[in-house]
Amino acid sequence: MPRNDLLLRAAKGEEVERTPVWVMRQAGRILPEYRAVRANMGGFKELVETPEFASEVTIQPVDHLGVDAAIIFSDILVIPEAMGLPYRMVEKQGPWFERTVASAADVGRIKVARADDVRYTIDAISLTGKHLNGRVPIIGFAGAPWTIFSYMIEGSGSKTFAKARKFLYTEPRASHELLDKVTRSTINYLKGQIAAGADLVQLFDSWAGILGAEQYREFALRYIARICDAIDEVPVTVFAKGAYSVRKELGALNCSTLGLDWNMDPMESRRLAGPGKTLQGNLDPAVLYAEDEVIVSKTVEMLDAFGPQRHIANLGHGVYPDMDPRKVKLFVDTVKGYRFR
Amino acid sequence: MPRNDLLLRAAKGEEVERTPVWVMRQAGRILPEYRAVRANMGGFKELVETPEFASEVTIQPVDHLGVDAAIIFSDILVIPEAMGLPYRMVEKQGPWFERTVASAADVGRIKVARADDVRYTIDAISLTGKHLNGRVPIIGFAGAPWTIFSYMIEGSGSKTFAKARKFLYTEPRASHELLDKVTRSTINYLKGQIAAGADLVQLFDSWAGILGAEQYREFALRYIARICDAIDEVPVTVFAKGAYSVRKELGALNCSTLGLDWNMDPMESRRLAGPGKTLQGNLDPAVLYAEDEVIVSKTVEMLDAFGPQRHIANLGHGVYPDMDPRKVKLFVDTVKGYRFR
Repeated sequence: MPRNDLLLRAAKGEEVERTPVWVMRQAGRILPEYRAVRANMGGFKELVETPEFASEVTIQPVDHLGVDAAIIFSDILVIPEAMGLPYRMVEKQGPWFERTVASAADVGRIKVARADDVRYTIDAISLTGKHLNGRVPIIGFAGAPWTIFSYMIEGSGSKTFAKARKFLYTEPRASHELLDKVTRSTINYLKGQIAAGADLVQLFDSWAGILGAEQYREFALRYIARICDAIDEVPVTVFAKGAYSVRKELGALNCSTLGLDWNMDPMESRRLAGPGKTLQGNLDPAVLYAEDEVIVSKTVEMLDAFGPQRHIANLGHGVYPDMDPRKVKLFVDTVKGYRFR
Repeated sequence: MPRNDLLLRAAKGEEVERTPVWVMRQAGRILPEYRAVRANMGGFKELVETPEFASEVTIQPVDHLGVDAAIIFSDILVIPEAMGLPYRMVEKQGPWFERTVASAADVGRIKVARADDVRYTIDAISLTGKHLNGRVPIIGFAGAPWTIFSYMIEGSGSKTFAKARKFLYTEPRASHELLDKVTRSTINYLKGQIAAGADLVQLFDSWAGILGAEQYREFALRYIARICDAIDEVPVTVFAKGAYSVRKELGALNCSTLGLDWNMDPMESRRLAGPGKTLQGNLDPAVLYAEDEVIVSKTVEMLDAFGPQRHIANLGHGVYPDMDPRKVKLFVDTVKGYRFR
């Protein structure tokens, strides 16, 4: 058990003396210490694939921002790569896959990844455990199957995800076959992360908001449910960005925590998700561009709305790369200093 | 009054014998007839700026798809251009502005546009009225102020709209000043369109889903409300994509119709918007990639959910350029052939 176990207790619904806090994308470009490590590497992927340095940048926000958890520095796209589709990270544009899935035959050629296929991240978690020595819990993560599926079909980000959505309608059987393979790969990978020392795992469904409720149930939620059911070693967090219309169903998942984006009302979400879930989030990241007083008052407003228990404070999305680390720390310190009345 | 006035009667809440139907982006790349006209032009903007051809492609979907309305072929970005920020349409990438608004001083230099500054679209509407000769109503349109504001700050599309959202937090006064100028420009422009013959006008708030409810109320909804209050000549439709959390407030607008995206549940939206609004939408555009039987059954399912009155059938977003016009027509024909039980 890590010494600061606020995050894990909040996730499990145990009483906490204050709300734990961490920040999505806390390990990354906002920190000058990260940029110093990155400057010596060939690129983003080299950093992800070098456990020693991935571990170093994972721990930086614990030291410099004072967050209550370390999330392993990696990328959700390591899974499609491990399944046979290598990607490149193009500066200022995002990920790009040289090959994509365009047919049922392509799906047949995709392999199910084992944890060992992403050895570098597993090793980075082991190393981080050694270096952190129990100061805070380690969060492992993976992309949710629908989001990974989208990248495998689109080959990059997209405004409309028309190709991925077309595949669901024109190749429903092959879609399910591919989602099944992604699901099995993700379970293998998360189990590997947990064996290496991850204390909690989070699924990121970044493109949840693209699907209507009916399709989300059929092509996204049921695979998330399988992952939640398969992981019983540690608490699981599901962050389905934009999934307004299925919050009730998300509340029925066998997971401990639901992540909320900044458009989801805390009280309405609490009602929809039910009393058995911890909620994580959800300050509008853009608030961290504002004056200090605004950051403090908006953070306090958010804490008041969620209440003192079953809440993990975070932003409603990843922090933006150009944000001032001092302001990010102000957010963290405001949560840590706040006491409910 | 146009001879086929189903759209206008449905918008006003009058009884209709069948549900009217049109398709967002119906005038455009899906039609070979459009591509033939476009091939002779220098580019997208030249087509927008040449009334004779803009009018021709506006009428094409009435002839070839059999829709119940013609929406004028133009672009929401003619307004920022008329306000002093010219843009280019970059093939496969989207719009790009050479200059953007980056400070309060920049806002001061932005001018309020008059309808005459977008003469070409006004003229295209007059010409369309002449050519259509009352066969179907003409829909005019403009971007909603928050969406136009976003483009003026970002200078292009964006994944996060971090610059525009930063401006709201760091320059709230200048933000309101710019939104006020956009609002006045939009009212001038829409009044010009109506004087030229637009029978109904639609506001597109494409980036509504980017803002949380509180910010949407402060920086988006109040300007939409001003436009709705200023336009009393014809029915107004407000399409705020992704604005799940403010549907109740949208229902209080002084407009006749609310557009729904494909993630919004028809019955829940009806309840939130109240009985005084017509709803427009909202088939998932990706359904038009599916087999014919699926297109028909999903369209019927949608019609059943909305019911026979106060509904204008449409997609939940613009049709994608690579879609088969035969399938788009199947959607239109399914709506036109359907009779409620």
